[in-house]
Amino acid sequence: MDPILTGLLKPRSIAIIGASATPGKIGNTVIRNLIDSEYKGGVYPVNPTAVEILGFKCYPTVNDIPYVVDAAVITVPAKFVLEATKQCGEKGVKGLIIITSGFAEVGDVELEQELVRVAKSYGMRILGPNIVGTLSNSDKMNASFAPFLPLPGKASLVSQSGALLIAMDAGTYTRRVGFDKMVSIGNMSDINFSEMVSYLSEDPDTNCIALYVEGLRDGPEFIEAARNCKKPIVVLKSGVSAHGAAAAASHTGSLAGAAKIYGTAFKQAGVTQATDLNDLFDRTLALSLQPRMKGDNLLILTNGGGVGVLATDSAEKYGLPLHFAPADVQEEMKKHMPDFGSAKNPVDMTGMAGNDWFYETTRSAYSHPWVDGLVVLYCETAITLPEEIADAIYRGIKDSGITDKPVTVSFVGGERSDKAMEWLVERGIPAYNAPDVAVKAIATLRDDQRMQDMNHNGSYAPGDINPAAARDIIASARAKGRDALTEVEAKQVFSLYGLPVAATELASSEEEAVKLAESVGYPVVMKIVSPDILHKSDAGGVKVNIKSSEQAKEAYRTILENAHNYKADAHIDGIAVQEMAPWATEVIIGSVNDSTFGPTVMFGLGGIFVEVLKDVTFRVAPISVEEALGMEDEIRSAAILNGTRGESPRDKAALAKVLAAYAYMVYDLKDEIAESDANPVIVYENGQGVKVVDARIILTKKY
Amino acid sequence: MDPILTGLLKPRSIAIIGASATPGKIGNTVIRNLIDSEYKGGVYPVNPTAVEILGFKCYPTVNDIPYVVDAAVITVPAKFVLEATKQCGEKGVKGLIIITSGFAEVGDVELEQELVRVAKSYGMRILGPNIVGTLSNSDKMNASFAPFLPLPGKASLVSQSGALLIAMDAGTYTRRVGFDKMVSIGNMSDINFSEMVSYLSEDPDTNCIALYVEGLRDGPEFIEAARNCKKPIVVLKSGVSAHGAAAAASHTGSLAGAAKIYGTAFKQAGVTQATDLNDLFDRTLALSLQPRMKGDNLLILTNGGGVGVLATDSAEKYGLPLHFAPADVQEEMKKHMPDFGSAKNPVDMTGMAGNDWFYETTRSAYSHPWVDGLVVLYCETAITLPEEIADAIYRGIKDSGITDKPVTVSFVGGERSDKAMEWLVERGIPAYNAPDVAVKAIATLRDDQRMQDMNHNGSYAPGDINPAAARDIIASARAKGRDALTEVEAKQVFSLYGLPVAATELASSEEEAVKLAESVGYPVVMKIVSPDILHKSDAGGVKVNIKSSEQAKEAYRTILENAHNYKADAHIDGIAVQEMAPWATEVIIGSVNDSTFGPTVMFGLGGIFVEVLKDVTFRVAPISVEEALGMEDEIRSAAILNGTRGESPRDKAALAKVLAAYAYMVYDLKDEIAESDANPVIVYENGQGVKVVDARIILTKKY
Repeated sequence: MDPILTGLLKPRSIAIIGASATPGKIGNTVIRNLIDSEYKGGVYPVNPTAVEILGFKCYPTVNDIPYVVDAAVITVPAKFVLEATKQCGEKGVKGLIIITSGFAEVGDVELEQELVRVAKSYGMRILGPNIVGTLSNSDKMNASFAPFLPLPGKASLVSQSGALLIAMDAGTYTRRVGFDKMVSIGNMSDINFSEMVSYLSEDPDTNCIALYVEGLRDGPEFIEAARNCKKPIVVLKSGVSAHGAAAAASHTGSLAGAAKIYGTAFKQAGVTQATDLNDLFDRTLALSLQPRMKGDNLLILTNGGGVGVLATDSAEKYGLPLHFAPADVQEEMKKHMPDFGSAKNPVDMTGMAGNDWFYETTRSAYSHPWVDGLVVLYCETAITLPEEIADAIYRGIKDSGITDKPVTVSFVGGERSDKAMEWLVERGIPAYNAPDVAVKAIATLRDDQRMQDMNHNGSYAPGDINPAAARDIIASARAKGRDALTEVEAKQVFSLYGLPVAATELASSEEEAVKLAESVGYPVVMKIVSPDILHKSDAGGVKVNIKSSEQAKEAYRTILENAHNYKADAHIDGIAVQEMAPWATEVIIGSVNDSTFGPTVMFGLGGIFVEVLKDVTFRVAPISVEEALGMEDEIRSAAILNGTRGESPRDKAALAKVLAAYAYMVYDLKDEIAESDANPVIVYENGQGVKVVDARIILTKKY
Repeated sequence: MDPILTGLLKPRSIAIIGASATPGKIGNTVIRNLIDSEYKGGVYPVNPTAVEILGFKCYPTVNDIPYVVDAAVITVPAKFVLEATKQCGEKGVKGLIIITSGFAEVGDVELEQELVRVAKSYGMRILGPNIVGTLSNSDKMNASFAPFLPLPGKASLVSQSGALLIAMDAGTYTRRVGFDKMVSIGNMSDINFSEMVSYLSEDPDTNCIALYVEGLRDGPEFIEAARNCKKPIVVLKSGVSAHGAAAAASHTGSLAGAAKIYGTAFKQAGVTQATDLNDLFDRTLALSLQPRMKGDNLLILTNGGGVGVLATDSAEKYGLPLHFAPADVQEEMKKHMPDFGSAKNPVDMTGMAGNDWFYETTRSAYSHPWVDGLVVLYCETAITLPEEIADAIYRGIKDSGITDKPVTVSFVGGERSDKAMEWLVERGIPAYNAPDVAVKAIATLRDDQRMQDMNHNGSYAPGDINPAAARDIIASARAKGRDALTEVEAKQVFSLYGLPVAATELASSEEEAVKLAESVGYPVVMKIVSPDILHKSDAGGVKVNIKSSEQAKEAYRTILENAHNYKADAHIDGIAVQEMAPWATEVIIGSVNDSTFGPTVMFGLGGIFVEVLKDVTFRVAPISVEEALGMEDEIRSAAILNGTRGESPRDKAALAKVLAAYAYMVYDLKDEIAESDANPVIVYENGQGVKVVDARIILTKKY
């Protein structure tokens, strides 16, 4: 763990710069909160005029403090923050908690950058500015203006919104979800999400990391940090709607990326994405209290058929469809229910179930090797007491001796059920007031394991490639003042990165066209190559199925003529002569250089699938061949590639290699390629490979 | 309102048959509950041996009661229920509340049917059997073994699961969602959901009807009752997963229909479908307290940017995307926020917002005509008190003088926020602990209005049809022992219901084939017609593009030969000669006779859209042309019909008429048609109409 970050987040002493004797001022509230949270470290108020604040001796400047200062909380107005930063640097403070607002979020980016520059020059790190502060139960430290420490627990929150952190802080008590740390990250001028994830991954007091993200500034680093993180991460990303994204951008001055690419990146990083605030709490509770679920066999115990059916629906919805329990499990379950109960799954003990049946079924089901995870449902009945059922479930779990598989619980009822669930949560068993939520919670433990099991090791690097030659082609296009490659150039670049392009050569005369057509082999396709004509077909610049030298010559003339008529002053590079690839299944591969996550590849089927159904999927580059296969399988029209309507299966293996190589290319050339398309790409039947028929590369803007 | 139902649900006197002096017995609990709920009507325990139970005089039989008995609660064991029913009939009891279980749900269907027969012979109605009972706050009546009356309110619940009713009853207090009535409907041997909906539609104490449904038994009646219902209806339908549906079927002995058709039917009936138990409570709260939302202009007020963005995302998710507020609204809002606030929408007053700003923005926004609905969000801050903010919002709403548009609220915070929200709910303002839920709640009020606005009046009835002739064709096929029509017969039936089929005639000889081909006009298609050959192409039984009499003769011979080789003993009706419809956009129309809702039409694009993407939509028949247009627009590939990739728009108007006529046909022939297909149907460009190229009708089984 970075000792400076430790000094910042777990300081042994804190200076409060801008300390105030006036109640209600933030410089007063922070000191009051440190007292209330029973902080055991040094507290040194800094105020040029006061002698003492809330019982602590005051110092005129931070330099006057005669002790080591780990962290400084800065609450002075924005215009004084730079000077305070310098003084902290002189003093040898490790970390700055800059609560003050009025920087990048209101447009003053320069001041914020200057702050970071100065802090770095002293080896200091900055949390903020524009934050609430930072809170830690294990350090009994509320170094913030949030009113109190959260309900203690094993989750930690990093929030980009201060208001939401304060509200969630209070909400931990009513929702009974415990947190150790709550860190307000604000403008992220210096310390960002990826560093917080890396830090909390090593923090012994954190079991699960919860994030509220409006916009990441460190996309690739975040993915890396999350992949390496030893603990479950759950994120609530706001600004996923078009209108919402706009609001986010104006809110903290960070650029929000497209919701779809965020979703992709989170999945690639092994991060669970919460759908809303309640969902964030629900999933955090389970992830912070229970182990991951290692297999797909979920068993549900219930005393109510109705909630059993609701839970069954939910299991399917959350990707854990129920299977009937094996015979020996059913036999054991049948001992604890009336004849009209059901031992299959859900195991319905019926409304007659009392404490003993709950105890016995819980204990034996939980300890059975077939069961990978257990959900226990209880409907309040007239013949049972929720607190006793809770006790029976708890004893059943404990007496099973099992600790490596998850269990969640739902009680549906009133106040007594709520109290009983609270009691269970205090004992480490996540409990929810609706059956579907208990199922969602165990499903999140399964999903987290599934994401762990994904192989992120090593992206695919195609052999026998020539990046230097590719860069030469790009440089030469740039030298001509162009910000896009021609089709022939783009295909050359593709080819130099090992992509199978339809052989294409550039002809500058009728004779050359014939020569090239003969070397490629008839039939051929001929297309205009001009930086000024992007939509070749519209310009009459494409002729297909050319079968002889006569036809080739005629095509050459006609295309030139059409191009001239279309745009008289177009610069013509020549006419491309291209192998005419036989038709098969058409797909599209493309890339964008996302402002948050960098080069990102897209894949989908061609034609109406892309244009009408928008049936495409993304991955942040680079990717492995395995991930590429995942892309092929996750589009809605995936079955087409497996062969439908009497067609043979397509060469998915070859396509996966092409996708991975494409991702490698756009990653390797991320400084050069802004956007690219391979469209169409023809995928042949198994063993017959793939052919890129058309290519486009748009270059990054360089000034 | 049906006076017998009123007698059952709001009885002035109740006999308890199976009354018991033993605490814990249901026959004792019901009397205890009537006492505890302060029921003011007559309570007459019936028990052959007891003299008095819980202070009430006991009667040996119901006939010995010297007063009028409106309802009898029956708790005696199943084998005595029939006798008790007869005695109630003799006594002149109006309604039976049969709590006893052990009927259809355990397989004893006959006993249950006998019960209904006997009750009907006396003019009595039955609630149950296998129920918890019925509860009503406005009647101060807990005639059930659920422990207490629910939190008073303006929603009423009808539940097919007794256990869930009991659990929800207790949950009304912790979730602060008030109910007037809770009715356990159990096996629905007699009174079913449609009757309860009709009854509660007239009930002055009910504003919103909440249903928990495992499987309807009265699909078409339910749709009718729901359409005529004056109040919002929200349903939680369980058993929507494959596995869940199986569990539902075994649970209450009712057959669960396919989830997709249920979803369609609910939408057609104007019923909101809740996704889970919390969602049921959330939506019920809003629908029972607030008016419907008349337009799409939602304004969001907030003191926290983060929750504002979350709410914005949610608005898009729930079909109410935000628009920027008009200039005059923004101007007014700006008066109540600092410079760095935002007046657009969401209106972000920032964390500086106090009581006055909340009051002023709420009042002026709510009374502005542009605003159709208002969501007020509050994040607990250090400078405000939740109870004061709640008061400010409440006053703002009240002082606006507006009562015909909805408002919902979310406070994110701790216990004080929860208390403040409780206070608001008591004053009729729905409040939720997460911003997205407050948005979902107002969106449900908008959706309910949208469903009201749908025109259900009158289904389309095609003119110039001949149902009698169609029935003759079917009868003649049945007379031959067949349970499917041939293509030619099916097309004749289609045609008699006004559907535009490709002209098809049956030839029995080469010469006849030539004659028919000439009358249809070349080119033609020729196809084998045999009840024993369903897959005509596989049998080599289809020849297309026949252009001359020679080709027609040859085709006739070849098809017969192929059919013989394919299945030597196949009965051959002849060979169909069909107009060769030019190709255009291919769609599929079909129908199933759903076990719950009856004839239901399906629509989708043909080929891969149906086979791979399962991109189809359903409507319970009959439908209007307007609804048919809705079907065309709601498939994922809808854009294809509008013309993509350079194609002209398809004739959607003609297609809608065909869809509506098709629905009319399968509805009119619902006793005859089990399943049907028009596949493919070719849709031409605007004004050019539609042609049904192939047809199939499977008949209902009749014994």
